[in-house]
Amino acid sequence: MKKKNKKVNAGILVIGNEILSGRTQDSNVSFISTWLNKNCGITVAEVRIIQDKQKSIVKNILEMRKKFNYIFTTGGIGPTHDDITSESISKAFKVNYEFHNEAYSILEKYYGKNNFNDGRKKMAKMPRGSSLIYNPSSAAPGFKIKNIFCLPGVPSIVKSMIANCKKYLDKGNITISKTISVHTVESNISRDLDRIQKKYINYVEIGSYPFFRLGVIGVSIVLRSTKKKFLKKCNLEIKKIIKNKKIKIYKD
Amino acid sequence: MKKKNKKVNAGILVIGNEILSGRTQDSNVSFISTWLNKNCGITVAEVRIIQDKQKSIVKNILEMRKKFNYIFTTGGIGPTHDDITSESISKAFKVNYEFHNEAYSILEKYYGKNNFNDGRKKMAKMPRGSSLIYNPSSAAPGFKIKNIFCLPGVPSIVKSMIANCKKYLDKGNITISKTISVHTVESNISRDLDRIQKKYINYVEIGSYPFFRLGVIGVSIVLRSTKKKFLKKCNLEIKKIIKNKKIKIYKD
Repeated sequence: MKKKNKKVNAGILVIGNEILSGRTQDSNVSFISTWLNKNCGITVAEVRIIQDKQKSIVKNILEMRKKFNYIFTTGGIGPTHDDITSESISKAFKVNYEFHNEAYSILEKYYGKNNFNDGRKKMAKMPRGSSLIYNPSSAAPGFKIKNIFCLPGVPSIVKSMIANCKKYLDKGNITISKTISVHTVESNISRDLDRIQKKYINYVEIGSYPFFRLGVIGVSIVLRSTKKKFLKKCNLEIKKIIKNKKIKIYKD
Repeated sequence: MKKKNKKVNAGILVIGNEILSGRTQDSNVSFISTWLNKNCGITVAEVRIIQDKQKSIVKNILEMRKKFNYIFTTGGIGPTHDDITSESISKAFKVNYEFHNEAYSILEKYYGKNNFNDGRKKMAKMPRGSSLIYNPSSAAPGFKIKNIFCLPGVPSIVKSMIANCKKYLDKGNITISKTISVHTVESNISRDLDRIQKKYINYVEIGSYPFFRLGVIGVSIVLRSTKKKFLKKCNLEIKKIIKNKKIKIYKD
């Protein structure tokens, strides 16, 4: 059942030593977050990046799934010894970690019977009761169990799979945003923004982000709201202040 | 006092709606993590990305600071209404949120008495008892209180400041790593890696990461250890397997 006009949130749990060590720059968080808001009106409210350790995965899954409507995990569902997400989630829910029949068939067909070795078979093992999230780019499916969605770590595969999560998700209100970039420093407009944020506190979230681009110093004022009308009003008010203060708009 | 030959770890708390919404791609985590390991032998063991909400900052600071030796926060120490890190940390430790005399002088000198407005003054307010982390690029200092290090969100400023945290940090053993990239798929070497990981379980952490570069499919095998001798032995063993299996080494 899909419901309208409501707040739906999610947490992301990034599982992987390679992200924590600094070796790999994560890009899944910003992709998943943007996709969830744009396509489902779901807001990502917290992200955790943790080590490939069963105890840590179990603890964070159980903690986060109570706080948010959905949890998306990335990483740790491949064929090697450091891929322990599926087994850890089985432990968290105290269910068997076993072959999923459909996943097994998909992978056997993809690799061919003669090349379907142990590593590849491992990718068909999941917590009992999981539903598959199909993978159009490299066959090995992700899975959904309760409010947890398990995706791989490779960004291109995540991108190809994410749409297959949609049918399982309740929809919320989509957050729309407006950005006003100006040639000034934050402290020159901080009082005005504070006043306007207080006025729109229940409708618009105002963020202020300094930037330095090609020698130009500026501020991006970002307005975010699920209500178009208020976003427009708030945007006009800020533009008026900028005009009165003779601050120039910055164009990319 | 700096101690040698031990494990020292840290957590990173990224404070900022702009990272969660997907608008801004974080790059501080990988920078701070790499810097901490290389310069101080400190391992980042967990990262959390949270919203600009006081309650959430307080809760996460108090939770994380018990789990890890140090916590680094990024974001939320600028002049605008959405910069609430300093005040929230004062709340967490139940100390006054007040002007830091030296920070006040630094900022007053930097902006000039006549241009030292309320927004700028706000950047001199910190939890009572904080020590400054000097900022060579834009004056406004970060601060350290107990085991918490508060840094800004702008990556270029974080880069310019991080060395000023060093004097407050105990040193641990530096983790060194070796990467072997090969022309194969993970499932072709997963059994061997599993066996070798078990053999070196107390000394070397083996990670396996598939990649797709310019149409080439491969795997990067990453070995990480604080013990050079074991890293070398483990590396040789893996290279031997690769040679026996006639797998080609991938060169960047």
